[in-house]
Amino acid sequence: MIVILNNKASDKQIDDVIKYLEDYGFQIHKSVGVERTILGAIGVKPNFDIRKIKILDGVADVYRITAPYKLANRSFNEDGTKINIKDVEIGNDQLVLMVGPCSIESEKQIFTLAEVVAKSGAKILRGGAFKPRSSPYSFQGMGEEGLKLIRAAADEYNLLVITEVMQIDHIDLIHKYTDIYQVGARNMQNFSLLKELGKTDKPVMLKRGLSALIEEWLMSAEYILAGGNKNVMLCERGIRTFEKYTRNTFDLSAIPIVHKKSHLPVIADPSHATGLRDQVPPMARAAVAAGADGLMIEIHNDPENAFSDGPQALLPDTYLSLIQELKLIANAIGREI
Amino acid sequence: MIVILNNKASDKQIDDVIKYLEDYGFQIHKSVGVERTILGAIGVKPNFDIRKIKILDGVADVYRITAPYKLANRSFNEDGTKINIKDVEIGNDQLVLMVGPCSIESEKQIFTLAEVVAKSGAKILRGGAFKPRSSPYSFQGMGEEGLKLIRAAADEYNLLVITEVMQIDHIDLIHKYTDIYQVGARNMQNFSLLKELGKTDKPVMLKRGLSALIEEWLMSAEYILAGGNKNVMLCERGIRTFEKYTRNTFDLSAIPIVHKKSHLPVIADPSHATGLRDQVPPMARAAVAAGADGLMIEIHNDPENAFSDGPQALLPDTYLSLIQELKLIANAIGREI
Amino acid sequence: MIVILNNKASDKQIDDVIKYLEDYGFQIHKSVGVERTILGAIGVKPNFDIRKIKILDGVADVYRITAPYKLANRSFNEDGTKINIKDVEIGNDQLVLMVGPCSIESEKQIFTLAEVVAKSGAKILRGGAFKPRSSPYSFQGMGEEGLKLIRAAADEYNLLVITEVMQIDHIDLIHKYTDIYQVGARNMQNFSLLKELGKTDKPVMLKRGLSALIEEWLMSAEYILAGGNKNVMLCERGIRTFEKYTRNTFDLSAIPIVHKKSHLPVIADPSHATGLRDQVPPMARAAVAAGADGLMIEIHNDPENAFSDGPQALLPDTYLSLIQELKLIANAIGREI
Amino acid sequence: MIVILNNKASDKQIDDVIKYLEDYGFQIHKSVGVERTILGAIGVKPNFDIRKIKILDGVADVYRITAPYKLANRSFNEDGTKINIKDVEIGNDQLVLMVGPCSIESEKQIFTLAEVVAKSGAKILRGGAFKPRSSPYSFQGMGEEGLKLIRAAADEYNLLVITEVMQIDHIDLIHKYTDIYQVGARNMQNFSLLKELGKTDKPVMLKRGLSALIEEWLMSAEYILAGGNKNVMLCERGIRTFEKYTRNTFDLSAIPIVHKKSHLPVIADPSHATGLRDQVPPMARAAVAAGADGLMIEIHNDPENAFSDGPQALLPDTYLSLIQELKLIANAIGREI
Repeated sequence: MIVILNNKASDKQIDDVIKYLEDYGFQIHKSVGVERTILGAIGVKPNFDIRKIKILDGVADVYRITAPYKLANRSFNEDGTKINIKDVEIGNDQLVLMVGPCSIESEKQIFTLAEVVAKSGAKILRGGAFKPRSSPYSFQGMGEEGLKLIRAAADEYNLLVITEVMQIDHIDLIHKYTDIYQVGARNMQNFSLLKELGKTDKPVMLKRGLSALIEEWLMSAEYILAGGNKNVMLCERGIRTFEKYTRNTFDLSAIPIVHKKSHLPVIADPSHATGLRDQVPPMARAAVAAGADGLMIEIHNDPENAFSDGPQALLPDTYLSLIQELKLIANAIGREI
Repeated sequence: MIVILNNKASDKQIDDVIKYLEDYGFQIHKSVGVERTILGAIGVKPNFDIRKIKILDGVADVYRITAPYKLANRSFNEDGTKINIKDVEIGNDQLVLMVGPCSIESEKQIFTLAEVVAKSGAKILRGGAFKPRSSPYSFQGMGEEGLKLIRAAADEYNLLVITEVMQIDHIDLIHKYTDIYQVGARNMQNFSLLKELGKTDKPVMLKRGLSALIEEWLMSAEYILAGGNKNVMLCERGIRTFEKYTRNTFDLSAIPIVHKKSHLPVIADPSHATGLRDQVPPMARAAVAAGADGLMIEIHNDPENAFSDGPQALLPDTYLSLIQELKLIANAIGREI
Repeated sequence: MIVILNNKASDKQIDDVIKYLEDYGFQIHKSVGVERTILGAIGVKPNFDIRKIKILDGVADVYRITAPYKLANRSFNEDGTKINIKDVEIGNDQLVLMVGPCSIESEKQIFTLAEVVAKSGAKILRGGAFKPRSSPYSFQGMGEEGLKLIRAAADEYNLLVITEVMQIDHIDLIHKYTDIYQVGARNMQNFSLLKELGKTDKPVMLKRGLSALIEEWLMSAEYILAGGNKNVMLCERGIRTFEKYTRNTFDLSAIPIVHKKSHLPVIADPSHATGLRDQVPPMARAAVAAGADGLMIEIHNDPENAFSDGPQALLPDTYLSLIQELKLIANAIGREI
Repeated sequence: MIVILNNKASDKQIDDVIKYLEDYGFQIHKSVGVERTILGAIGVKPNFDIRKIKILDGVADVYRITAPYKLANRSFNEDGTKINIKDVEIGNDQLVLMVGPCSIESEKQIFTLAEVVAKSGAKILRGGAFKPRSSPYSFQGMGEEGLKLIRAAADEYNLLVITEVMQIDHIDLIHKYTDIYQVGARNMQNFSLLKELGKTDKPVMLKRGLSALIEEWLMSAEYILAGGNKNVMLCERGIRTFEKYTRNTFDLSAIPIVHKKSHLPVIADPSHATGLRDQVPPMARAAVAAGADGLMIEIHNDPENAFSDGPQALLPDTYLSLIQELKLIANAIGREI
């Protein structure tokens, strides 16, 4: 932490600030310049609230010099995290595809789509059984019945399952059916849920909140990591901005930045980021070009009658031809799909 | 819902759109103009996903004409909701003050501050026992021990208690100690939690999410109301914008807008909205002038050693003199504190 | 400037960074800690691009420690700028009111409204003759004819004139008619225009850009001040956020912050901030309570037929009764209207 | 325009609204539903301020059904605009590259970089002679001397020139040296400047403002088009959001959306969008994958000593190898570089 003293700070004020810092266990380096004095404060845990110093008399400004996340920090694992689930590895040069409907709706629907997913070469089937809907009157998901269906469909086509968990008392239930837990954007800072997921033995994909700073996103990952679960991946799915022509603004620059700041794999979700089907292919291509470690894509065989988010689902044929383009782009940057 | 057809839409396309809408139970009014045809679709529940129509062939644009919230809508209760708890009524011309520390830290701390709160004429004591902290390494609250202390302090000074609930399995525990449940900004779209709070018999104060549209905020209130709990109040606590000199941007215009769109009382929290102590008094004054039904203010007798958010806490003396200014402003607009 | 070196930075890298800084004329203070080394670099002009250091090998992060604005800085004039125009002083405890129509439309309109303005006790008449409209097909203002009308109306009722300047070659023309130049939000970073206004002898009111950081706003004021024109005031008029129920989000916390960071007076414009008439009174009241040095308010005698922004104009009667409330609020905080 | 009447609107109110609309020349279609009445108002120019109707008694809401831009609308030129300058065509399957330094600094610098540009196969040399800097104390550009240098360098290497124009009285001067005028983000709504550029005979590239809606951006293009200049292209260069790890958020989804809404070519500028060199290559790749019609990229042979924006400039070698990757990605989506 760097403390910039006011250029009119008295010696007494400066000494008081130093004492205050030392009482917290900081080691102080004092640097006296012509116009002002600067203190370097070294040695205390990263979650110290720097505003405590900002309000002391004589202090002009304070800067944190270490990232507040530790286990999620790139320096903790320079090689990058690889997550292994059965025969799939996430985080290497082979991009992973997580594909399926927004909601599990019926046996026929999920088996039909699982077949398309398998045919495309994707390894992971997505589908929600518990849905976070902004309206209490909207379809809230099939619950355990849906979990059974997606597991059966995935097993039939040799796929892994990813599905969303919304509350602590569903963790055990979902554990019986899924391979990966998904935490949705609206729960990114549901810290109670994150703590409990830190204790499970299955990987977690943490979606970025609608208005989450990259730093806050990594801090939420830190909650899971600190609980002992090392298999965390992130998912960029669009942030909220002033623009109205898209549902969200897909923040693709988050991908190279997370790769620089953290060792965790980053998946990109162009379906939620844009919210409209015709935007999905160009944004899926852009995500691969930007370096995503995988894509989550929504498909539906009958989107006009989908129970949720049909308008952003690709039709199977569009999806299959998109995959061909994505392969070429992945190759162009030395990766594979 | 209004459906604008493309100016090149064929008769077949228009008929298909009409049939699709009728199958959903809509009653259709067709209006043929010189350049284009417009459909009015009337009669279906407000949570219909209008993007379903947007993607049909021949459709140029679609507008919802009814608000998606029903029980939270002003028209549901034109007189405005009044929430009665013991001898306090929230939502009338008498502004309610909810004051206290960010976190409950010790018996001495909460009793000292409860005395200040009572002395100021405020009726409600705030204080957190379970804290949603962005870092897993920060102080997470005293838990049930803290709840016992705030209840005892409130009883000693004849105050009500408001405290935050973060997870479903704490609802019953907190019920034993609190008069009002607080839902924090980060849980505003934790729909599982909201549903359960809809079943309790105690009032809920729902804080606005960092990037929540007013409409989404009212939809989250709708979750609680739809569960049967009519005693819901809202709390504006600052939204996330690009500005960096403040922690959040206090959206005071949300106050008159919520009053127009909804019958629920609106509290304003200038402490979280600004994040720095010297911003709290001017923003508290502005909130009263803008028409807030109450204020939530953080105070601390020793902010430099507070366990959380000390930098935004007012000292008791500053707080007491602020109240005098607020009384005058309330009077200026025909209300009282 | 503070330079944080990477914890793996080599001695060679550190020496190179120091040399690079010294070549720019900085005086260096080196502070060697257990984990990392920190450099304090003192002595160079505030507009140095710190990213130049950020990209050097071995550098982890860089912080500027002085504000980039100098003449606009509070420390340059601790007592606060007072702007004197004829018998009006802006920046003291007496709030200034700038009131009138969005656009000057006719002799009858501007004289009618000038009478209302004078009657209310306001001292400054506003009205646009050159209008920055987002559509090329919208009314673009009456031009010089409008300037003549507003000057005549103001003289008739003993008022000052404020009107907008949009381009350099209008500065001289407008000089003949106005008392204060207004720079609109969309021109806040039209640096060519700001430079020329720095050479005039009439005060300038600089509106905040729709997405301008407070720091950028002060830097734009610096352009005018650096040109030699000391009579600059600022105007908060709402910023762009994700919220859709208001035209803009009125950032009232900017008022106390500008007062802390700068000595320039701050006017608040609730008409443009909200964009709808019924939002103007509560936000005008909040702006006074937050400490604004003045208000700019749009009124119109026939808003339904106004050439521009009629929907946000107050009717004369509503305006006159609002002023009564504002007087009480000003008194509550020790000021006057 | 669609007018939704309040469900309690009286017959008198409805008749008054209809009369008001008819007086403006609208043709009215009235549709009476069970709960409410809806009016379709057809036939008036697109820049009508719908808030005029919103404030009438009995009106609940109003929606515009036509885009406010006409000449910039896709329907005005379904095939897409192609801009021809000498032997270069912008807007076809061949992507155009605009490459060079942020500022023109010296003869040696611009000739060195022009050689790199030509070597890469790019056709257009960029470089600023008049610079919009946020600080009045920063380097403001070489002025006409710079224009002469960039023209000479471009001629030497058979390149076109693009350079920024900041004020009306520079239009003629710059005309002597440039092939394309660039309008910077901060001048996107400098309507006076746009109007004058509508009268020139050289193409204009209009950068998107930091917080401009896509609709506003197209309206600004409309200003130039309405003046008679048909050769307009757009440039996405990042928008302002809450995220702090990047200078701006590169809104790549704007590319497919502009292609859908408008016929104008869209260039992408990853250098300004990210602000840091190591972010430029992944974002350049993503922009090509998203369908940009060209890229603007900053390069510098000595970025550490660049007069402006050195930290975001690519070194020539990095730039040349990036181009190889971009060619492969362009091919993957059926285009060429």
